[in-house]
Amino acid sequence: MSDPFFHPVSGLELPRFAGVPSFMRLPVVPPGHDRFADVDIGVIGVPWDSGTTNRPGPRHGPRQLRDASTMIRAENGATGVRPFEVVNCADLGDVAPNPADIADSMARITAFYEQVKVAGIRPLTAGGDHLSSLPILRALAKDGPLGMIHFDSHTDFFHSYFGGQMYTHGTPFRRAVEEGLLDPKRVIQIGIRGTAYDTEDKDFARANGVRLVEIEEFFARGIPDVMAEAREVAGGRPTYVSYDIDFVDPAFAPGTGTPEVGGPNSFQALCVARELAGVDIAGADLVEVSPPFDASGGTAFLGVSIMFEMLCAMTGKG
Amino acid sequence: MSDPFFHPVSGLELPRFAGVPSFMRLPVVPPGHDRFADVDIGVIGVPWDSGTTNRPGPRHGPRQLRDASTMIRAENGATGVRPFEVVNCADLGDVAPNPADIADSMARITAFYEQVKVAGIRPLTAGGDHLSSLPILRALAKDGPLGMIHFDSHTDFFHSYFGGQMYTHGTPFRRAVEEGLLDPKRVIQIGIRGTAYDTEDKDFARANGVRLVEIEEFFARGIPDVMAEAREVAGGRPTYVSYDIDFVDPAFAPGTGTPEVGGPNSFQALCVARELAGVDIAGADLVEVSPPFDASGGTAFLGVSIMFEMLCAMTGKG
Amino acid sequence: MSDPFFHPVSGLELPRFAGVPSFMRLPVVPPGHDRFADVDIGVIGVPWDSGTTNRPGPRHGPRQLRDASTMIRAENGATGVRPFEVVNCADLGDVAPNPADIADSMARITAFYEQVKVAGIRPLTAGGDHLSSLPILRALAKDGPLGMIHFDSHTDFFHSYFGGQMYTHGTPFRRAVEEGLLDPKRVIQIGIRGTAYDTEDKDFARANGVRLVEIEEFFARGIPDVMAEAREVAGGRPTYVSYDIDFVDPAFAPGTGTPEVGGPNSFQALCVARELAGVDIAGADLVEVSPPFDASGGTAFLGVSIMFEMLCAMTGKG
Amino acid sequence: MSDPFFHPVSGLELPRFAGVPSFMRLPVVPPGHDRFADVDIGVIGVPWDSGTTNRPGPRHGPRQLRDASTMIRAENGATGVRPFEVVNCADLGDVAPNPADIADSMARITAFYEQVKVAGIRPLTAGGDHLSSLPILRALAKDGPLGMIHFDSHTDFFHSYFGGQMYTHGTPFRRAVEEGLLDPKRVIQIGIRGTAYDTEDKDFARANGVRLVEIEEFFARGIPDVMAEAREVAGGRPTYVSYDIDFVDPAFAPGTGTPEVGGPNSFQALCVARELAGVDIAGADLVEVSPPFDASGGTAFLGVSIMFEMLCAMTGKG
Amino acid sequence: MSDPFFHPVSGLELPRFAGVPSFMRLPVVPPGHDRFADVDIGVIGVPWDSGTTNRPGPRHGPRQLRDASTMIRAENGATGVRPFEVVNCADLGDVAPNPADIADSMARITAFYEQVKVAGIRPLTAGGDHLSSLPILRALAKDGPLGMIHFDSHTDFFHSYFGGQMYTHGTPFRRAVEEGLLDPKRVIQIGIRGTAYDTEDKDFARANGVRLVEIEEFFARGIPDVMAEAREVAGGRPTYVSYDIDFVDPAFAPGTGTPEVGGPNSFQALCVARELAGVDIAGADLVEVSPPFDASGGTAFLGVSIMFEMLCAMTGKG
Amino acid sequence: MSDPFFHPVSGLELPRFAGVPSFMRLPVVPPGHDRFADVDIGVIGVPWDSGTTNRPGPRHGPRQLRDASTMIRAENGATGVRPFEVVNCADLGDVAPNPADIADSMARITAFYEQVKVAGIRPLTAGGDHLSSLPILRALAKDGPLGMIHFDSHTDFFHSYFGGQMYTHGTPFRRAVEEGLLDPKRVIQIGIRGTAYDTEDKDFARANGVRLVEIEEFFARGIPDVMAEAREVAGGRPTYVSYDIDFVDPAFAPGTGTPEVGGPNSFQALCVARELAGVDIAGADLVEVSPPFDASGGTAFLGVSIMFEMLCAMTGKG
Repeated sequence: MSDPFFHPVSGLELPRFAGVPSFMRLPVVPPGHDRFADVDIGVIGVPWDSGTTNRPGPRHGPRQLRDASTMIRAENGATGVRPFEVVNCADLGDVAPNPADIADSMARITAFYEQVKVAGIRPLTAGGDHLSSLPILRALAKDGPLGMIHFDSHTDFFHSYFGGQMYTHGTPFRRAVEEGLLDPKRVIQIGIRGTAYDTEDKDFARANGVRLVEIEEFFARGIPDVMAEAREVAGGRPTYVSYDIDFVDPAFAPGTGTPEVGGPNSFQALCVARELAGVDIAGADLVEVSPPFDASGGTAFLGVSIMFEMLCAMTGKG
Repeated sequence: MSDPFFHPVSGLELPRFAGVPSFMRLPVVPPGHDRFADVDIGVIGVPWDSGTTNRPGPRHGPRQLRDASTMIRAENGATGVRPFEVVNCADLGDVAPNPADIADSMARITAFYEQVKVAGIRPLTAGGDHLSSLPILRALAKDGPLGMIHFDSHTDFFHSYFGGQMYTHGTPFRRAVEEGLLDPKRVIQIGIRGTAYDTEDKDFARANGVRLVEIEEFFARGIPDVMAEAREVAGGRPTYVSYDIDFVDPAFAPGTGTPEVGGPNSFQALCVARELAGVDIAGADLVEVSPPFDASGGTAFLGVSIMFEMLCAMTGKG
Repeated sequence: MSDPFFHPVSGLELPRFAGVPSFMRLPVVPPGHDRFADVDIGVIGVPWDSGTTNRPGPRHGPRQLRDASTMIRAENGATGVRPFEVVNCADLGDVAPNPADIADSMARITAFYEQVKVAGIRPLTAGGDHLSSLPILRALAKDGPLGMIHFDSHTDFFHSYFGGQMYTHGTPFRRAVEEGLLDPKRVIQIGIRGTAYDTEDKDFARANGVRLVEIEEFFARGIPDVMAEAREVAGGRPTYVSYDIDFVDPAFAPGTGTPEVGGPNSFQALCVARELAGVDIAGADLVEVSPPFDASGGTAFLGVSIMFEMLCAMTGKG
Repeated sequence: MSDPFFHPVSGLELPRFAGVPSFMRLPVVPPGHDRFADVDIGVIGVPWDSGTTNRPGPRHGPRQLRDASTMIRAENGATGVRPFEVVNCADLGDVAPNPADIADSMARITAFYEQVKVAGIRPLTAGGDHLSSLPILRALAKDGPLGMIHFDSHTDFFHSYFGGQMYTHGTPFRRAVEEGLLDPKRVIQIGIRGTAYDTEDKDFARANGVRLVEIEEFFARGIPDVMAEAREVAGGRPTYVSYDIDFVDPAFAPGTGTPEVGGPNSFQALCVARELAGVDIAGADLVEVSPPFDASGGTAFLGVSIMFEMLCAMTGKG
Repeated sequence: MSDPFFHPVSGLELPRFAGVPSFMRLPVVPPGHDRFADVDIGVIGVPWDSGTTNRPGPRHGPRQLRDASTMIRAENGATGVRPFEVVNCADLGDVAPNPADIADSMARITAFYEQVKVAGIRPLTAGGDHLSSLPILRALAKDGPLGMIHFDSHTDFFHSYFGGQMYTHGTPFRRAVEEGLLDPKRVIQIGIRGTAYDTEDKDFARANGVRLVEIEEFFARGIPDVMAEAREVAGGRPTYVSYDIDFVDPAFAPGTGTPEVGGPNSFQALCVARELAGVDIAGADLVEVSPPFDASGGTAFLGVSIMFEMLCAMTGKG
Repeated sequence: MSDPFFHPVSGLELPRFAGVPSFMRLPVVPPGHDRFADVDIGVIGVPWDSGTTNRPGPRHGPRQLRDASTMIRAENGATGVRPFEVVNCADLGDVAPNPADIADSMARITAFYEQVKVAGIRPLTAGGDHLSSLPILRALAKDGPLGMIHFDSHTDFFHSYFGGQMYTHGTPFRRAVEEGLLDPKRVIQIGIRGTAYDTEDKDFARANGVRLVEIEEFFARGIPDVMAEAREVAGGRPTYVSYDIDFVDPAFAPGTGTPEVGGPNSFQALCVARELAGVDIAGADLVEVSPPFDASGGTAFLGVSIMFEMLCAMTGKG
């Protein structure tokens, strides 16, 4: 059972539209806080989008996700899990990026997550663009390469952009494999679709043993079957979960920079996260929520609903 | 056959964007009008949201629903029913609420619907938040408890909010059962989902014999099967139909105060209403449309499309 | 293999948000340009909505579709087709309509497409409202009536509107059959739904041998089965493809003037276009995208994604 | 004193967001109604925009203006005038246009206003695009040419568009002068600004004695001085008032099709209408409100606030 | 000089879009916090709108104002005042309202502000609707009636609504005078305008010695003159400042429930607050910001800019 | 007189909503085009915002500005200047930035403008964030430091951000002075306002002889007086004009990343540009238009209206 200090504020006491908005109304416990060491799962914002090659905006994601997250209540209606009672959860605050320097920002992110890892906290991240995952993995994979279950419409396995730029939101997992942070044979990517410049990314992925589940296969087989395979790929060993909101169809998640039509609906978006139960999740992220492209906040609300499902899975009670 | 007085204005005579917008372009026949007694089905607005515990707005619902309803034509494309030719339909106007007094507003609503019931008119209501259903039921259940087919993502069976508030949009059906307005054994709730504070509402419902069809069961069994059960629960006796627009996924119906992702799409939203054919409908409502959260009006257009399906079902020709 | 002159600008050289936006970043080659004769497939804008009986706006469609189309890349992720390498594609510019004269505008459109046809270019049109298809067909059907595969929620087979108006976006195919531009026995309409004034349109269509696939049948049978029938109806002879964006559910395509809820999702919207592979496509259009009703541009992005699928099918490599 | 039948519904009885929205909550008294002959000032909608050469939308103006008008109360805060108590006011409904035929629509409008004029009712019109003023003037100027006070950023005095189109929203007053409906020496145009193709319109206007007050002069002299001149130009004889919402700066009135930056603010927009007091107003209109370009409704609210000021001036108590 | 604990986070360290959003990035120091007693000026949210008679939404105001307030920097560019270095400022959190009970909510607000007053903290409130000012005044006027400088387009001096409702956002200052919380002879209201039902409110105000500056007088005299009078009315004794955002023209502040066109611009909106320097401010509020009517947040940003000016004035360094 | 090749397409031939949108409908003549050498004034897009420290988006500016610019006609209504007939104007296309590398992007921009300068073309730039001005100045100031007339709410004279970042949109003119590109004694900044971290920027500016006109002085003196001083500061020698759209009040120009309330209105925004007539303009830019924060496009329309005024001033006919 969790410590009551880490219980979120209830909407029956303080209405959900009221109060300073922390993630899921959890206490704010940044590094240095005297309860930091007691946190089991820490929700962290990475307000950064310098890796974006097309339409920027995810730097505003954590702010809007915190706002929307105050709509989340205590219990998972589908599974009955009450995560905040099972483990100590907290909002660890945001990493401070340097909007004008990619390398410096990545160093800051890695340093933040190293503190988290040292404290034994498993991070649940609200991005930020997808390049964020790379400096996070640099901190989390200290003990060896991780597996990864990756929901996305893009592989993010490209070599480089714009004449040699190695660090963009289209390249993080290429770097992660090159740097030994991910074991490509324990990586599965689900939902890949859309037009492409070429297949250089898929060729690299497949050549290294990554399992690609394109959207046609995903719809044809169904979620239980695909997710059973995902759990098998993860193999019961420490696995990172990376969830790009553009996995979901843009009618359900318009607030993102590189949407691809023809994706899953919101029920499917939740179900794949729910099916993570049983995976040994070393950390998880929800990235590419871009508020300027969805002023209504519907994308953020879906995003935090997915984060809540991932959090439930991370409790081990999924 | 209906009286031509009650036929809506055709878009081929006056374009659909023109004219003072009444519900489905029907004549406006409020209580006291000399044709009031001739109405069979009356469409009524309840512009009231004082029961809202989270994001207000449904007080603006009837206005926007009337506007959107001018897009509705004469014939149901799927079933061929032409409801305005079958029965006398009219726009009965809006109940005047008291925005600053919940009890007074409820009394005004009940009084309005008592006039409607006495005149032998079956009401089709455009809410308003879900607390609206309670004062309506108080008028309609004079002859004994009604059954109810209820589409929603929430049960609305909670006991109270905020330290004892008995009358909110989360409690109407708890009150209705307590007051003997509903026979809980003839109540079915379809579409329940989302996070929860606890299961006190579901516990009460189940303990009293209410049938809960949560969203996972709904998708697994399919609409024909679920709706066959719904008709069986209704049991051929007078039944109220209550349709909360948040039953539908927020990508299709963003304009509502307490959305829950992972719901039915618009085709499913229409089909469940179409499958009401054969039910002895004592009255029906469509509630929780909140225009401030959907300036584009898409939610309202879906709402009136659902209302038209319910109207067709109410004609007995479904 | 295509001439490199006709290759689109790559987003890896000039980011996709940059540059003067032509359709799919193709070269602009209007009639009179010295490479006009070398074009195989020409993308053409028809910025015209004088046939609109309800909510206007499609005159702005080509502008927004060009903007969104700069997000399209070189290769179809599902099929591997790289259309711009297979045939010479170009943006042929917009037809200049006369917003204040329907007959003059139709004459201008027909004259433009006659130039296109004479040059041996197959047109892919971005409308414009659905009346646009009529003057296009007048140019394309010079050699005899065409077949048609038509995706829409409406038949557009009405006789007239508003006391005798023969030329509106609800009547183009009635005129096309009357004028011998379409062979009704080789016409199939898919997705028909929504409320109706009467069945005069469907009666005419069926009496002339048109195949109507209403939305209930579409969902019940599934896309492979329906599209196999469509290819059979087309019969291996020259066929026009007309795609009204209101075929798609308004949650996915809100930017249109006469939406009908309960339609296909975006994955289905793409798949039906992909299944056109093998049809002898004499020309194709995507009509009724109305930017004023979708400022976010999501409808336009879906629209150009569909256009890209149709383009792939037109290459014969589908 | 006015007949209580013609008093609007008070927001203290029925909240302003409730009820079927008629203009300023007045009774709906269309031609044929048994109280039609008792109306002094009739508010009329002209939902028509076929004269629009650029961005359409004003056909939706009357609907949105009616909605916004329910915010208007009984008394002019600045002058103390209570117009609804002074004269009998009513909502006369909308003219039914023919969206596909300009000439037919103009004939319908003229016919409607002839009924109004015969009944001795002075019309206050909610457009519609500016071409609407021409068929209205044809009905009102039966007894001889009228003067006109015209607020606009454009003169609307062009000869023709698109190769000879004589009837567009840029030409109504050229036609009105040619047809003898306006006495150009009693016409003043206020607020003219923006880029131009040429000065053919201004040349015609000035050659015929029209007084043009361009925006620089307007700001330099101030409203009292300019409006004193306007009253002098009107000359105490019957005068039409035509108010194009694009007179106002687009920050205050974005919902219009041909905005021109650099215009008056909302206080100035009201003041010029207030300064009409004392003019013998034969009729007035507020045109070019285009809801698709202002979903928030701010333009419509400003529009009805201006209409209320014009109505006060029309009572002769202004 | 202030205690560094109370300095806001700088945007040069943590970008302004990052971090948990507290008011002006100040530390969150709710009642009970161990630094509570050290606060000089406390910013408080009152997320409550149950007094709204028309369009609800201000319950969401504090959330959006906090978000926008992270754009505010350390120094007033016009005056050079650096308020956070002069006095200890903090975000005291939100009062927990009871959305379903007006009386209970008012009691909760008064209780919260009594704690604040007892601690010697001067409150700067982010509403909430205008009824919020009444329970605040009940706490602050313990030592005798206060003066008030009130910016608004409405007097809020009505007796009651809807058949006797005494507590709405149109009545707070009537109650405050009746209860002896305000000395009407030391009250000035600035900006009054718009249509009215009657003059009952103004009659009461004037009969009791309140000074009303209607908008025409405001513009005619100019800000320095009007504000000199305001300071004179306040008389050097404790004075409350109440700023309804609808004082400002809706082009600058669309996000409010009862807008009135023809108001001041944003420069004027700031200047009147700046001219409060020298007033003995017992407390201040900024009310009626309604985010659902301004998704872009421009109203909130203007609101917090005004709050910052009021804060500067409250430091005594204005 | 200009060459007809360089005349824009008229809206009387091709309606303004039609056609591929180039700047002001001018021909597209990029470097390498065979008419490049004949261009006098070239409009150039710089779709780049990597210098943005707060809310990104100006990379989308050129696209939306081109779209809005098709509303601009041939003649300046206030001055009668017809710029396209006086000099040869063309759209030179966009510079290709590298979104992931600031230094590389700046080099690309400088290289592009060097080509422009060598060809004797004076550039009118559509940004892009304000850092864009620095690489442009590097190309234009080859012959010695330029003067500058600068409209902005910020000085952009800061030394660095985020721990030493020298190249952001807050630092370009600090660098330009340091690099000898600007003569600070011939620099005037107009419109400065808003909150600040400190006065380090203003201190540097003033210490180097820059003339700062803060917004209070601007409003107090009026445009003719301020702009006469600006022309005097420019001193009849080559001068750069830099216009940040956030000079204008955000009610008129919401689409920008760092708005400051309390600025000029749109009439004033145009007038200051008109008063540039007589200045020896070596180049001009309009920067910081951020479409994601203004989906309606009103900011872009104001932006291109300002660009048109600057273009008129650049013709020497002002």
